[in-house]
Amino acid sequence: MARRRRATRSSSKAGLPPGTLVYTGERERDKTQISIIDYDAETLQELPASTLSACLQRRDTQQVTWVNVDGLHEVDLIERVGVGFGMHPLALEDVLSTQQRPKLEDYEDRLFLVLHMLSWDATGDAIQSEQIALLLGPRFLLTFQEKGGDVFDGVRERLRSNRGRIRKAGPDYLLYALLDAIVDNYFTILEHLDDRITALEEEVSEQARPSTLHAIHAMRREMIFLRRAVWPLRDVIAELERGGCPLVDEGTRVFLRDVRDHTIQVAESIETLRDLLTGMQDVYLSTINNRLNGVMKVLTIITTIFIPLSFIAGVYGMNFQHMPELHWRFAYPAVLVGMLAIALAMLWLFRKRDWL
Amino acid sequence: MARRRRATRSSSKAGLPPGTLVYTGERERDKTQISIIDYDAETLQELPASTLSACLQRRDTQQVTWVNVDGLHEVDLIERVGVGFGMHPLALEDVLSTQQRPKLEDYEDRLFLVLHMLSWDATGDAIQSEQIALLLGPRFLLTFQEKGGDVFDGVRERLRSNRGRIRKAGPDYLLYALLDAIVDNYFTILEHLDDRITALEEEVSEQARPSTLHAIHAMRREMIFLRRAVWPLRDVIAELERGGCPLVDEGTRVFLRDVRDHTIQVAESIETLRDLLTGMQDVYLSTINNRLNGVMKVLTIITTIFIPLSFIAGVYGMNFQHMPELHWRFAYPAVLVGMLAIALAMLWLFRKRDWL
Amino acid sequence: MARRRRATRSSSKAGLPPGTLVYTGERERDKTQISIIDYDAETLQELPASTLSACLQRRDTQQVTWVNVDGLHEVDLIERVGVGFGMHPLALEDVLSTQQRPKLEDYEDRLFLVLHMLSWDATGDAIQSEQIALLLGPRFLLTFQEKGGDVFDGVRERLRSNRGRIRKAGPDYLLYALLDAIVDNYFTILEHLDDRITALEEEVSEQARPSTLHAIHAMRREMIFLRRAVWPLRDVIAELERGGCPLVDEGTRVFLRDVRDHTIQVAESIETLRDLLTGMQDVYLSTINNRLNGVMKVLTIITTIFIPLSFIAGVYGMNFQHMPELHWRFAYPAVLVGMLAIALAMLWLFRKRDWL
Amino acid sequence: MARRRRATRSSSKAGLPPGTLVYTGERERDKTQISIIDYDAETLQELPASTLSACLQRRDTQQVTWVNVDGLHEVDLIERVGVGFGMHPLALEDVLSTQQRPKLEDYEDRLFLVLHMLSWDATGDAIQSEQIALLLGPRFLLTFQEKGGDVFDGVRERLRSNRGRIRKAGPDYLLYALLDAIVDNYFTILEHLDDRITALEEEVSEQARPSTLHAIHAMRREMIFLRRAVWPLRDVIAELERGGCPLVDEGTRVFLRDVRDHTIQVAESIETLRDLLTGMQDVYLSTINNRLNGVMKVLTIITTIFIPLSFIAGVYGMNFQHMPELHWRFAYPAVLVGMLAIALAMLWLFRKRDWL
Amino acid sequence: MARRRRATRSSSKAGLPPGTLVYTGERERDKTQISIIDYDAETLQELPASTLSACLQRRDTQQVTWVNVDGLHEVDLIERVGVGFGMHPLALEDVLSTQQRPKLEDYEDRLFLVLHMLSWDATGDAIQSEQIALLLGPRFLLTFQEKGGDVFDGVRERLRSNRGRIRKAGPDYLLYALLDAIVDNYFTILEHLDDRITALEEEVSEQARPSTLHAIHAMRREMIFLRRAVWPLRDVIAELERGGCPLVDEGTRVFLRDVRDHTIQVAESIETLRDLLTGMQDVYLSTINNRLNGVMKVLTIITTIFIPLSFIAGVYGMNFQHMPELHWRFAYPAVLVGMLAIALAMLWLFRKRDWL
Repeated sequence: MARRRRATRSSSKAGLPPGTLVYTGERERDKTQISIIDYDAETLQELPASTLSACLQRRDTQQVTWVNVDGLHEVDLIERVGVGFGMHPLALEDVLSTQQRPKLEDYEDRLFLVLHMLSWDATGDAIQSEQIALLLGPRFLLTFQEKGGDVFDGVRERLRSNRGRIRKAGPDYLLYALLDAIVDNYFTILEHLDDRITALEEEVSEQARPSTLHAIHAMRREMIFLRRAVWPLRDVIAELERGGCPLVDEGTRVFLRDVRDHTIQVAESIETLRDLLTGMQDVYLSTINNRLNGVMKVLTIITTIFIPLSFIAGVYGMNFQHMPELHWRFAYPAVLVGMLAIALAMLWLFRKRDWL
Repeated sequence: MARRRRATRSSSKAGLPPGTLVYTGERERDKTQISIIDYDAETLQELPASTLSACLQRRDTQQVTWVNVDGLHEVDLIERVGVGFGMHPLALEDVLSTQQRPKLEDYEDRLFLVLHMLSWDATGDAIQSEQIALLLGPRFLLTFQEKGGDVFDGVRERLRSNRGRIRKAGPDYLLYALLDAIVDNYFTILEHLDDRITALEEEVSEQARPSTLHAIHAMRREMIFLRRAVWPLRDVIAELERGGCPLVDEGTRVFLRDVRDHTIQVAESIETLRDLLTGMQDVYLSTINNRLNGVMKVLTIITTIFIPLSFIAGVYGMNFQHMPELHWRFAYPAVLVGMLAIALAMLWLFRKRDWL
Repeated sequence: MARRRRATRSSSKAGLPPGTLVYTGERERDKTQISIIDYDAETLQELPASTLSACLQRRDTQQVTWVNVDGLHEVDLIERVGVGFGMHPLALEDVLSTQQRPKLEDYEDRLFLVLHMLSWDATGDAIQSEQIALLLGPRFLLTFQEKGGDVFDGVRERLRSNRGRIRKAGPDYLLYALLDAIVDNYFTILEHLDDRITALEEEVSEQARPSTLHAIHAMRREMIFLRRAVWPLRDVIAELERGGCPLVDEGTRVFLRDVRDHTIQVAESIETLRDLLTGMQDVYLSTINNRLNGVMKVLTIITTIFIPLSFIAGVYGMNFQHMPELHWRFAYPAVLVGMLAIALAMLWLFRKRDWL
Repeated sequence: MARRRRATRSSSKAGLPPGTLVYTGERERDKTQISIIDYDAETLQELPASTLSACLQRRDTQQVTWVNVDGLHEVDLIERVGVGFGMHPLALEDVLSTQQRPKLEDYEDRLFLVLHMLSWDATGDAIQSEQIALLLGPRFLLTFQEKGGDVFDGVRERLRSNRGRIRKAGPDYLLYALLDAIVDNYFTILEHLDDRITALEEEVSEQARPSTLHAIHAMRREMIFLRRAVWPLRDVIAELERGGCPLVDEGTRVFLRDVRDHTIQVAESIETLRDLLTGMQDVYLSTINNRLNGVMKVLTIITTIFIPLSFIAGVYGMNFQHMPELHWRFAYPAVLVGMLAIALAMLWLFRKRDWL
Repeated sequence: MARRRRATRSSSKAGLPPGTLVYTGERERDKTQISIIDYDAETLQELPASTLSACLQRRDTQQVTWVNVDGLHEVDLIERVGVGFGMHPLALEDVLSTQQRPKLEDYEDRLFLVLHMLSWDATGDAIQSEQIALLLGPRFLLTFQEKGGDVFDGVRERLRSNRGRIRKAGPDYLLYALLDAIVDNYFTILEHLDDRITALEEEVSEQARPSTLHAIHAMRREMIFLRRAVWPLRDVIAELERGGCPLVDEGTRVFLRDVRDHTIQVAESIETLRDLLTGMQDVYLSTINNRLNGVMKVLTIITTIFIPLSFIAGVYGMNFQHMPELHWRFAYPAVLVGMLAIALAMLWLFRKRDWL
């Protein structure tokens, strides 16, 4: 698993006035990329970033506009886009301040969401986390991503091929489709984690090593962070589904309910995996304990058999002048036989006590 | 206990549009079986699957129709049935996506439930889990099962023999009867688990072995999964009982309250069994600990008795020229007696310290 | 403590239609006993069971009728009584199905309660549990007990001697009086358990043995079951007190509040005793641990003192031709003195390290 | 810390009718003492107990009457006082039944409170607990204490010296003043406990002994009982502050809010101390563990150094005829040097492994 | 980490009447400092403390007045200021009684807040805590700090430079700005703690020492206190944001929501860090355990190899007259070879058992 994620938000903003736009994530070298998709049931246009200002002006259209922004380090550009779409300064600040807690802000004519898009990094064998902010307005949806690359290819495909109801519905349905894609992807993550946990489970009961425990703990840590991303999301989506926001159509709500159910399922799976990890840790500790027991038994058996025998040998190694046994003819073999008898008696005792 | 159930839903659906029908369970070879029972207080007909389409058309009847579908891999057929009975696409998707969390969806004129039917597999000595989806409509009940074989034979028997009020009541009462059969069967599972736990309890205090701990942990894992199936069910049935759904008759509610009580009882029994398992684990660990203590005591007693004696023997085995004791007449027996005295003193000390 | 109570309800009813009357408790040999007490402020009559049918007919009386049924295995008789007093089939089923969870069912003109009457079996030194069901109707109270013998003698005495307000009040006050007697008896149980725990507490810190831990665990198990009987009772009585049921008089409510407070007190005492038991287990484990430490210290002290000495003896027991020391005049006493010095130095070191 | 408080209420009342007055506390020898303070903004009179009956008759006065009763074993007297002031029989019963849970009963024109007055017994170095019951009526406050001696001297002083608003306000403000005195005293208790815990904390990390653990556990037990006294008090005072009781003036409510905040603070401090104690127990166990580790290391080092050396000595102590080494000139010193080398090598190895 | 903060409030106030002003914090030598800032959108004046009384009189101004008081030991001065601004006596008492729980009191025309300002003391490498009380009135904000030095320099800077909306808005926005500065500073604290925990994490898995465990526990203790400061703050700010207080403008609420979100984030980070610390403790204990295992293995291996060999040497060191082997020509080398074989066999066995 990759190096540990920070548990806390960066404090680089402490002391600045609210609404100050500072990007707190990792600086990437790539330029900020903007892509625009304009669609209705009949037509779909993918526009270049350069048309953005035109796009801002013509907002009385009946078409739905999805503006996706990849990369957040060009703060000025982000601000221009945000202000252009009527974003509240605090929301704009939240876009740039990564490591936010998932949240939903309802600014009456704008709906603002922050959540985390997770993906499984096959090369690093680790979870990649990326903050994504969504702004839902009357006929548009604005999405801000930290980096390029996302889990929305399926949604784009459906838009282009006009499959399902996505082209017929408004931007709230697009919002749902993106949320659904993100949450569905959580299942992929969970599946990867589940596979690793299954592997650890076998390792624990067969050949528990210190590294196994470290792996269990690294896993538990991942779970803590995953949980922190998912639990508030539950409330966010429930609020979205329940809430009286006019931007979200009644017909979209049943779909949001579905996403909410999936989020609950993700949350419960995380709890289950945590319970499994706790159980594994107990098994690990008792495996180690059993081994110690085994080691101690071997030590005890060897010691308790040989120490009395060595003592006898020691006795007959004494140099007293008057030790009559030393001169008897069969004393030596008799002593050897006696020693053997003692050893056998000991072994019999151990077996009776179920130590062997 | 059988191999571990997955903790997470399969992610094979990630990226697909909502409403895409993909069956995520195990593929069975058997054909999908459809059975239809048409009844009212006077008559009961068991119709072949071929009459399904006829059945779909004539829905103005006053008879209650129970359509049961066994096996979900013929996705087209499932879709045709579902659409025929006016099922919401998302509900249809949930039918096929096994490993759902128990849930209740109220689509005004349709009531959709997903839950898990458990059964005890006597041959494999394990819990078998199967997802079951129920769709309640005005005069019909539709049930989808993953596999053939269920716990509804008692209900069918009552339908056929016209015992109790089942034939007089509507499809909501049939729904109740099926839920009751499923929940009653949970008690059978719990009884099996309780028996196993009682057996483990005796094993733990008499002859605790590593395998005992593994059995305890396997049991705890079963409990985690069982709990996950039962806890949301509680809310589902409570919502069904409380809720203002017009499809559920006022008279049926008192029966649903009974099922809810049973579900709570199942949930509490699971908690009790979990508590017992936790207690057993503590007993196991302290039993193991006690054994280690016993082993250490034996080692210590043997060592502390013989090491001083061996030392004495070693002293008189030294080859110094001027060791007057070696030439004394009764030095040897005196040393032996002295050794015996030391050993007895040691034993007395151990007994006084309560080590023997 | 007696053998373990089952954690789960018997499943012998799985598959039967609701309302099927099956007695799930232990079969006793005694006949079902019915006793009837008819009273108002002026008169009190104790009627034989044979008058039951007469009693059922004349229900327009202003007298309060308390019918008590001991023993539940004569299912037909129970059914006749229940139906006679207008009991709902599901309630009747609950009467017979022992190991119910405490519950309250409000059937408008009937109030049905199930709870557990506990008593301390002085001979077996164990808690005896018995399910008791109460049906409150307009002018009557019906009670069903599994076995003969109960904690209601004080109530009967008060009825007969016309002490307090019991004869002046209606059947709801009688219900309260019985509940109060049952809950008061819980305190007796708790006192017995408290005494045992106090005894265990002394045992643990003075002479902890494996049997002590087993006793602690048996006690914790009793607590789990006790808790399961008492916690839902809290809600039941609170609902009874709060609820808008017309069968319960406003004046009786203040008394029910008192019972509710007692139930909460019982529940909290159980939690306190559980906490104490958890603490005792920790003390036990650390006592055992300390002993192991003591054993290891003895082993280590003896070993580390004698092993170097034995080594020295071994060196001078070697048979080399050229070992000048062996021929020195005072070598032997010098070596002995040296050994003594080493032993004393070791002891001083151990004392300094606080091991002695 | 003193001997353990019982976890459960005495059961000596089981079976008695409600309203039966039995004093369940310890019997003290002192007579029940009654003191009466009659005051308004201008005058204050401290009346002898003999004026009580006069006081009961003249209740139309505008003066506030505070009747304080010390000692509860004269049941008849208590009853007379209680009935005189219009106390509900159940409340009167609660006065005498000590070890009650803190509670508030609102009898419309009377407000009844039970709580615990704790004090620190400097001689026994323990917490002293005493139940106190308060009855608030239109122009009077009645307080019942188990024993003489209380924490109200400050309040009396303020009454006599007419400091603050206490003389101007009604009996509800007096009630507040007493509650405030009781809760403020909890802080004194907490301070004593905090001091002891700080002392234990140092002991634990410097010279952990079995007695340390026993002290930690005794402390945790005190915490369990303290918690039980304080947690329900929180709700009681919150209810008093929130509630619509006409006996409590609007202006007094802001003061009650202050007491409530203090109670919450006490409750949180208890939790914090409990957390600290749990942490200390962990430290204790790992300190003990570390010592065992230290002991084992010493044993291992001594043993593993000397056992090989003793073996070599043993080899050259064998009596074979043909052992050429024995006759070599410098064999003996060579063997000694070899042994030294082995010992040094071992020590170097231990140091490398960080064992020394 | 610095010496332990007390878990409990000082009890020096027990027994005093409510409203008695006693400063319970540390006495500092510095004089109480008062600074006054008077501003509106156009002008800003920083006034000397001497103008305070003038300031108190002229309260009909449209300017916003921020009076900041540093140092609380001049009780008379504090009282004069408080009374001058219409502060409730209980609020004034809370200002002086440090170690308060964060709370919000709504006195209709005044809003009173108590919370804790934390700062990281770089020299002592510890958290510094200071209580801060805020009183919001119609056109003024009053702040009381225990010591000089605060986290408000950024806010003062913004006031002076007229950046953002702070000069245009009322005192409620100033209150928000101060809360925001305090909560933002919590992130700085968390970052420091996070760094230390990361350092401990590496220490634990690489070179766990008793001091590591002590550091973990000291950290956990810091977390307990931090949590205690932050959790109630969550409710305080949520109440402020939600509440119907007319002193807080509708437009300010959206900003308070932002602070509330940050507080929740702080609270969650604390929980996460606590979870991490718990996990680290487990890792520590198992590391220690593993080491013990390692030590025991070394002991066992050395002992079980050499004890049998020593025994053989002992046998041939016996002085029996008739031991034929002693006279054989190659007995000695044969025995040596035999010993070597035994040792090798042992080593092979250990390797097979995976002990080496």
